[in-house]
Amino acid sequence: MTYDPSTRDVALDDTALAQLFSEARTRNDFSDRPVPEALLRRLYDLTRFGPTAVNSTPARFLFLTSVEARQRLAPFMSGNNREKTLKAPVNVIIGMDTRFHETLPRLFPHAPGARDWFADEAARRESAFRNSSLQGGYFMIAARALGLDVGPMSGFDAAGVKAEFFAGTSVEPNFILNLGYGTDENLFPRSPRLDFEEAAQIL
Amino acid sequence: MTYDPSTRDVALDDTALAQLFSEARTRNDFSDRPVPEALLRRLYDLTRFGPTAVNSTPARFLFLTSVEARQRLAPFMSGNNREKTLKAPVNVIIGMDTRFHETLPRLFPHAPGARDWFADEAARRESAFRNSSLQGGYFMIAARALGLDVGPMSGFDAAGVKAEFFAGTSVEPNFILNLGYGTDENLFPRSPRLDFEEAAQIL
Repeated sequence: MTYDPSTRDVALDDTALAQLFSEARTRNDFSDRPVPEALLRRLYDLTRFGPTAVNSTPARFLFLTSVEARQRLAPFMSGNNREKTLKAPVNVIIGMDTRFHETLPRLFPHAPGARDWFADEAARRESAFRNSSLQGGYFMIAARALGLDVGPMSGFDAAGVKAEFFAGTSVEPNFILNLGYGTDENLFPRSPRLDFEEAAQIL
Repeated sequence: MTYDPSTRDVALDDTALAQLFSEARTRNDFSDRPVPEALLRRLYDLTRFGPTAVNSTPARFLFLTSVEARQRLAPFMSGNNREKTLKAPVNVIIGMDTRFHETLPRLFPHAPGARDWFADEAARRESAFRNSSLQGGYFMIAARALGLDVGPMSGFDAAGVKAEFFAGTSVEPNFILNLGYGTDENLFPRSPRLDFEEAAQIL
């Protein structure tokens, strides 16, 4: 099946929209079914095309698939995130490169001065945080688009994860997620969401 | 077509993946084709199901569809973002509610103390920024899933947008995007992305 740009104004079918959004759930438990390396690479290949400011793509993705690697992470997870993390086949640390501007001469070639737009460290950090979070959102929807389930967590010792996995680099952890094929175990009923009028407005 | 959870482990077809990710492009120009209000509401209805920490869903969505509303925004946009913004049929200010914790008794009902986890303002702001950015990512992919195109921008006067659109509220702007049916006008060749080995690692 090839992509026809003239039909990109048509919505995906309801089954696809349900898989990506309306019926998808954060999973707290995962089956033993492994996630092949080829699928992790395909997941990155989709994620990287999502839009970021000046194509900066500051997110970095550390896939922990071995028992040894996942056991290194577990002590830094809060409360019951620890057990969930150890049970999932893959943990992913979504990091952000706080020196992403060094890649801009290559990633944003039509504006040779783009690196200098991010000389200020606080502004650069804000941009890295915003854009790596956007990429984290792309990553989770791309995972679902590939038939995977996710369980994101922000309750962990960030300084500890930085020291254990990113020491001596400009990468810092943003958030962490479990990845694999989810089960219904420990699945809460879906919590309510805000109505349109509570969260949105049309002017 | 109904959703069958037993098939959610299957990837969407390549045409859908291309529409969402690999062939989708940030658009700098949009056709005059309007975006009906029903489609904006459907877009919000998909976006709101994306995962956020403690179901906080801190993003707020201000859709500017009238000429008057879009002219109020334009003066705050940087450089050539101004002209792009005026040409698009819809501008969306993705905001974040820095007092999202007040909604948690309703949004996260199984943990009655969740509001108090966010008493610290700096930690709350970080969570609002991360999670509203994640929701911004969901929003953009959901827009593409509905056949729309997006053009996100973070070059604008945030204090000015806050004062013009969110004065006296706990909402602050995160980023802004143009929304509609894109054209190929002013479309750069796609910029390069980092290879897997440059942005990711498997342990």
